[in-house]
Amino acid sequence: MAHGPTIGAYLIDQLHQRGARHVFGIPGDYVLGFYDELTRSKLRMVNTCDEQGAGFAADAYARVSGLGVVCITYCVGGLKVANTTAQAFAEKSPVVIISGAPGVGEQVKNPLLHHKVRDFDTQLKVFRELTCAATVLDDPHTAFAEIDRVLHACQRYQRPVYIELPRDVVHLRGPAHHKPRKHREESDPVTLRASLEEAVEMINRAKRPVILADVELHRFGLQEDLVRLVKKTNFPVAATLMGKSVIAEHYPQYLGIYEGAMGREEVRRAVEGSDCLIMLGVFMTDINLGIYTAQLDPGRSIYATSERLSIRHHSYDNVRFTDFLHGLLRARLRRRPLPRISRPAPVFKGRPASGPTGILNLCERLNAFLDDRTIVIADVGDCLFGAADLTIHHRTEFLATAYYASLGFAVPGAIGAQMASPKSRPLVLVGDGAFQMTGMELATVARYGLNPIIVVFNNSGYSTERPMKDGPFNDVWNWQFHKLPEVLGAGRGFLVRTVGELDTALEAARADTKTFSILNVIIPKDDRSPAMRRLTERLAARIK
Amino acid sequence: MAHGPTIGAYLIDQLHQRGARHVFGIPGDYVLGFYDELTRSKLRMVNTCDEQGAGFAADAYARVSGLGVVCITYCVGGLKVANTTAQAFAEKSPVVIISGAPGVGEQVKNPLLHHKVRDFDTQLKVFRELTCAATVLDDPHTAFAEIDRVLHACQRYQRPVYIELPRDVVHLRGPAHHKPRKHREESDPVTLRASLEEAVEMINRAKRPVILADVELHRFGLQEDLVRLVKKTNFPVAATLMGKSVIAEHYPQYLGIYEGAMGREEVRRAVEGSDCLIMLGVFMTDINLGIYTAQLDPGRSIYATSERLSIRHHSYDNVRFTDFLHGLLRARLRRRPLPRISRPAPVFKGRPASGPTGILNLCERLNAFLDDRTIVIADVGDCLFGAADLTIHHRTEFLATAYYASLGFAVPGAIGAQMASPKSRPLVLVGDGAFQMTGMELATVARYGLNPIIVVFNNSGYSTERPMKDGPFNDVWNWQFHKLPEVLGAGRGFLVRTVGELDTALEAARADTKTFSILNVIIPKDDRSPAMRRLTERLAARIK
Repeated sequence: MAHGPTIGAYLIDQLHQRGARHVFGIPGDYVLGFYDELTRSKLRMVNTCDEQGAGFAADAYARVSGLGVVCITYCVGGLKVANTTAQAFAEKSPVVIISGAPGVGEQVKNPLLHHKVRDFDTQLKVFRELTCAATVLDDPHTAFAEIDRVLHACQRYQRPVYIELPRDVVHLRGPAHHKPRKHREESDPVTLRASLEEAVEMINRAKRPVILADVELHRFGLQEDLVRLVKKTNFPVAATLMGKSVIAEHYPQYLGIYEGAMGREEVRRAVEGSDCLIMLGVFMTDINLGIYTAQLDPGRSIYATSERLSIRHHSYDNVRFTDFLHGLLRARLRRRPLPRISRPAPVFKGRPASGPTGILNLCERLNAFLDDRTIVIADVGDCLFGAADLTIHHRTEFLATAYYASLGFAVPGAIGAQMASPKSRPLVLVGDGAFQMTGMELATVARYGLNPIIVVFNNSGYSTERPMKDGPFNDVWNWQFHKLPEVLGAGRGFLVRTVGELDTALEAARADTKTFSILNVIIPKDDRSPAMRRLTERLAARIK
Repeated sequence: MAHGPTIGAYLIDQLHQRGARHVFGIPGDYVLGFYDELTRSKLRMVNTCDEQGAGFAADAYARVSGLGVVCITYCVGGLKVANTTAQAFAEKSPVVIISGAPGVGEQVKNPLLHHKVRDFDTQLKVFRELTCAATVLDDPHTAFAEIDRVLHACQRYQRPVYIELPRDVVHLRGPAHHKPRKHREESDPVTLRASLEEAVEMINRAKRPVILADVELHRFGLQEDLVRLVKKTNFPVAATLMGKSVIAEHYPQYLGIYEGAMGREEVRRAVEGSDCLIMLGVFMTDINLGIYTAQLDPGRSIYATSERLSIRHHSYDNVRFTDFLHGLLRARLRRRPLPRISRPAPVFKGRPASGPTGILNLCERLNAFLDDRTIVIADVGDCLFGAADLTIHHRTEFLATAYYASLGFAVPGAIGAQMASPKSRPLVLVGDGAFQMTGMELATVARYGLNPIIVVFNNSGYSTERPMKDGPFNDVWNWQFHKLPEVLGAGRGFLVRTVGELDTALEAARADTKTFSILNVIIPKDDRSPAMRRLTERLAARIK
């Protein structure tokens, strides 16, 4: 065997070099050796209550910092993060799943070792469906090259990858003089030039060019470039729901959130009426496009993402998203006068600080509460749709799973977000139903001394579903969420039934930066935001 | 289209005919139409907090009643039960997974509908790895036959199956005169006779025949037959850890739990010293066989399971487990004198009712607490290994995931067990680490008015792992578990630090049958049962 570093050490080193500083997970005997190594490394281990929490935390961490890591044991740990990995895949979040496994030497003769499902490669097969690259490090000669390949894919495609680590290889040494291969992907220069020529001509000839910006700009670190493009050209810019925080909302060129017929009419008119719509990193998903009420004409569009570049009805291969955007920045684009965007009446008007809490006055108060250090993490439900109208101040401040829409992301997500961005303070918006899935990760919040402010939209169940089809299955049991600090021996709890109580609780939560706060905000069962009403009417039509 | 019942109605009817009375799950828009139908059917819908809880509850329900059902939405629900389905597969529990899905009509052109991961069949591919049969009901002409096929496989192999239900087919009608196909599997009569002849001769010639009984006897409803065989022959009978409750432990022929060198020496000697070991439905797993310290000589064994029949070194095809066992019951087996089994000194001696609680006095008190109506549900950890020595009174009274060993089974498992067996009262033994994964399903316990007694073995972390490799990753945050009733507005909580407090709490819990009780039993961090010590020494040797 060779005399290089151990496979465990090389993996840790590569994760660190690529920007990871934390690893989320729960140990188990098949991964204990690697945990031991992790504990003595430059990476910090963060233990959650359940593996699901680790998966969500790592996803949020990846969205904020650029690389998330989950480390769990074989099957009983790994299969618990199947859903969170699927979310990372669907929404392009670069998460590395590291799973322990029975030793290569133990697998001979296929014995029934504990945690095994069907065959030893069952978990691998499952994760092949949920990741963009997967490997089992069962050969020290190739292990380093495999680690390089898989981690490269994670960052190139901004999607999760799977690394299985049989427990008897962690301490084996790999090749002595391995040099991490540089994977450099380049655009074909001729195609790039041709695509830019066409795009620039189309843009300069247009009367009403508009930019539609989405979350891939954030994933590939291109937000500054977007701002430069907007400032250079004065083109009006809209964002999608998923891309909400990709540009700060105070720019005079900012139109608002585009959601087809579900969103604000002025934004819809501007976007759909454009004779040259420049779609940058847009996810063509149902919720993002207003449940397919979007009327976007490809014949008048430039559509650039990490996977595809289309102009009108044809597409160009081998053009990197980044190169195309940088090309636009360098090109001679005709500067327009600063658009006059009719600012809508503020969604959140001053309302009297009295009376019971409801969706609208809650969102209004939260909007006033945001500052430059807030990261808003919205779970699924009216905490997301209602929050769509919050005014985002700084560019990384809104995290949500607005496409995959898996309930329970927000509380564990806050752990990952704050670990990745320790100076910010997460504001978690979560429904009572979603909280009951993963909210007890507050124990992890307490354990690591984090201080998010959790606002539970307590409206007695799954209120997104009620307008589609209601029944007892949409109810949830009522928890006294504000009493959880007594169970956890940490945090502050507030029962909020009126706007006055809300103001008091928010102030107290802001003032106490030492620990987390949880606000149990009572909302009438049938109170829904206007955005939610529009959404559920559309969805209901599909159920019959 | 045909004029038979709707696909949704037929599915519900078949589940009911095969014995299901409850369905566990959480709704989502892709499955709301079917939920609506379920609510108006003979089946009762049980909503859990998280899909994981539904998966574990249905598994326990299946183990007790013979068929469990989970119903969840597409991907964000389905992938959350990947792990619980894997457990059901590994431990042979007949669970039907029903997942909603986008309508067949919506899937045309492969749009990015919410909850989709990679392709529309991603979830199907995942579940093919975790089930013994899977189908998508996308064609009304074949839907009924597919339902028959898949449900038959579930009961034939006692393993989970997957049914995907696109939302636009729920109300479509299937063939008008469909007759459920009878799948009857029969042994080949000649082979069956030959195998029985050989077995009977081998048994009758043996000096020390011994039966080793495991959990498949329970899965296939053969416990009464086992008892008959034991009474008819007077052969000594041992059970494995997984098969612990397959026979009541008061029979004079009962030897105890066999776990290789890890178990009691007298049992090991009797089993390994037998010149004709009749292994019935035995799982050949590492934990079950004392981490491979079992010394079982195939040359002196008859090994019968649902998948295989071997006698000495050869095997017989096409012999059903049930037919073989019934054949033995009918055969002329030489009756032996009642064995004189040297009853071991009781594991649980009377100890003074004072002093701090520890593993040993806790298990002792729990042993005295059991009665004929208790179902013990043990999670993984010392709550399982310590509980191995509890005396089981009635035959279905011990549920555990002793092979797949997924933490977090016990609390949601109690929901399923009590729904399946409403007259019994679950006694849940769960570690603090496992409770933090799924224990908040106590909300579901409260919602449906169940009354399990939950005993939290609070030993400050993952104590199974500490002897193998210790570090901060084995710690968990300390919850005041006994305060959870205040959060849930139901149940009774007890903080237990001494044997005196334990006795008081157990009595109070027994007396209050109206609601659940939760005992937060403080155990020293390094206190381990003798069985756990033996296990972890063995496991540690494999980690290096």
